[in-house]
Amino acid sequence: MKHALGIDIGGTKIALGVVAENGSIQANTTLPTDSRLGFKSAVQRMGQAARMLFQSSGTPVTNLAGIGVGCTGPVNPLTGVVDNPHTLPGWDGCNLIDALSAEFNLPTWLENDADVAAYGEYHFGAGEKADRLVMLTFGTGVGGAAVLKGEIYRGAGGGHPELGHLPVTNDGPLCYCGRKGCVESFASGPAIASAASEMGFNSVDAVFAAETDNVSASKVLMDARDAIAAATWSILHGFLPDRIVFGGGLVDAHPAFFVDAARAAISRARLLDTTAVSVAPARLGNLAGLVGAARWAIDQ
Amino acid sequence: MKHALGIDIGGTKIALGVVAENGSIQANTTLPTDSRLGFKSAVQRMGQAARMLFQSSGTPVTNLAGIGVGCTGPVNPLTGVVDNPHTLPGWDGCNLIDALSAEFNLPTWLENDADVAAYGEYHFGAGEKADRLVMLTFGTGVGGAAVLKGEIYRGAGGGHPELGHLPVTNDGPLCYCGRKGCVESFASGPAIASAASEMGFNSVDAVFAAETDNVSASKVLMDARDAIAAATWSILHGFLPDRIVFGGGLVDAHPAFFVDAARAAISRARLLDTTAVSVAPARLGNLAGLVGAARWAIDQ
Repeated sequence: MKHALGIDIGGTKIALGVVAENGSIQANTTLPTDSRLGFKSAVQRMGQAARMLFQSSGTPVTNLAGIGVGCTGPVNPLTGVVDNPHTLPGWDGCNLIDALSAEFNLPTWLENDADVAAYGEYHFGAGEKADRLVMLTFGTGVGGAAVLKGEIYRGAGGGHPELGHLPVTNDGPLCYCGRKGCVESFASGPAIASAASEMGFNSVDAVFAAETDNVSASKVLMDARDAIAAATWSILHGFLPDRIVFGGGLVDAHPAFFVDAARAAISRARLLDTTAVSVAPARLGNLAGLVGAARWAIDQ
Repeated sequence: MKHALGIDIGGTKIALGVVAENGSIQANTTLPTDSRLGFKSAVQRMGQAARMLFQSSGTPVTNLAGIGVGCTGPVNPLTGVVDNPHTLPGWDGCNLIDALSAEFNLPTWLENDADVAAYGEYHFGAGEKADRLVMLTFGTGVGGAAVLKGEIYRGAGGGHPELGHLPVTNDGPLCYCGRKGCVESFASGPAIASAASEMGFNSVDAVFAAETDNVSASKVLMDARDAIAAATWSILHGFLPDRIVFGGGLVDAHPAFFVDAARAAISRARLLDTTAVSVAPARLGNLAGLVGAARWAIDQ
């Protein structure tokens, strides 16, 4: 069976693992990202950690098919260059493909983190190899990705579409995406936290806990629910996917809220045959990116 | 060079043509649909008309690669069955593939009319073989289709997504699609006509004519403009296509209004590299479906 090194780079943590073709993780670990220490430091630390994983899993580097990297975007999968000054300050213009392929002398592929997470769920999780899979992740932001016929979907110039910024309304808060009233501006963790705080709740979790029998809690969550419904409607009428998967921290904590809002929207659709469309919460948690990135490298 | 018979079936008219692989129309004609006369009558009349076209174009039926049919949906491209009681009353459950392939003893393919129109624009019109093409048509309704890497995009169960029903707002008029505030409910011909009439205009054309220097005319068109912007934003953040094409009667009459609204939306997008994304009005008018259907049959 083939193996690859999977790396999932977020703003806070870097997860690394030696992953088999069937998705089983032979060994894995995490590091702090600390991007401000510089790109060179991060590459060195990833190199050290990976070498320990090769040893503990008994997988010599020469037995690996390659390295798959998922990284918080924007990244350019064609060139390998990182362009994310907000989440990865200090790495602007650095080339992950060049650096990591030089470190290990292995073929290296870079993708947006939402794309590899969807690819992981497609092969080993809630995606269940659906012909057309769309995944949204709800956390600090709202991200998304599509896997069509087993391939990560890329847009013009190889770019990653941004499904978290589909429109919900024409008004609402102005988002950094350039539009008022997109999904992220209503259904991200910070958006819900801000609405919760205005209504006197201490935390997002407090609102979810009180939802069923507290009018203000239910009101706080109404905008989020409408945003999930609108996103689902857009995805349904745009892609008509076989499977919609919701992941991310907010969904891990409150899966029924997200899945139910989407299913309710789908049940109202009159123009489409939705019998083949299903919605499921992600199954791989924060390991989706790691296994997805590794499998992507194996499949190239 | 290969040739095929292209047929484009609408609620009012049926267009037929003998079309070459390069898109040139050797001979074409139109019939009234008159679906209430029954399916058998329509198949006979299509048969007669096609045989005249074979003769006038000097193309014996044995030289044809096949028959491509675009039909106002819902249709099932896998089985050939028509399921559109509103636009094609009397044809429910009838099988276009079976009937037409029996009539001519030729391999026959059926697609949604928006799909073959997009395929026609992709090969011979404003699509210019863009890797990812999304087309919207604005007329009595708002339709849409995507052609990805040269293939008509189909959703779950082979179904045709309905891009004309992407969300614009959470309120607004309830559409027969099952949701309030979708694109069609603001930007179709009847939607604009109804807003125009409320403001005392006689016609949609009168509103467009007065738009630049009449406040009420500009107000009537504001909802349509917002809907085009929202649809563009959804398509951009969902598909990140290389090319967006707008067609249909309303766009043929007022191309700048539609194209400008979309370009303004694209220019506001901050998270995507939109340098490779362009918008263009359709170039083939109401012949797009005919040539697209024929070319689709040739390519299968």
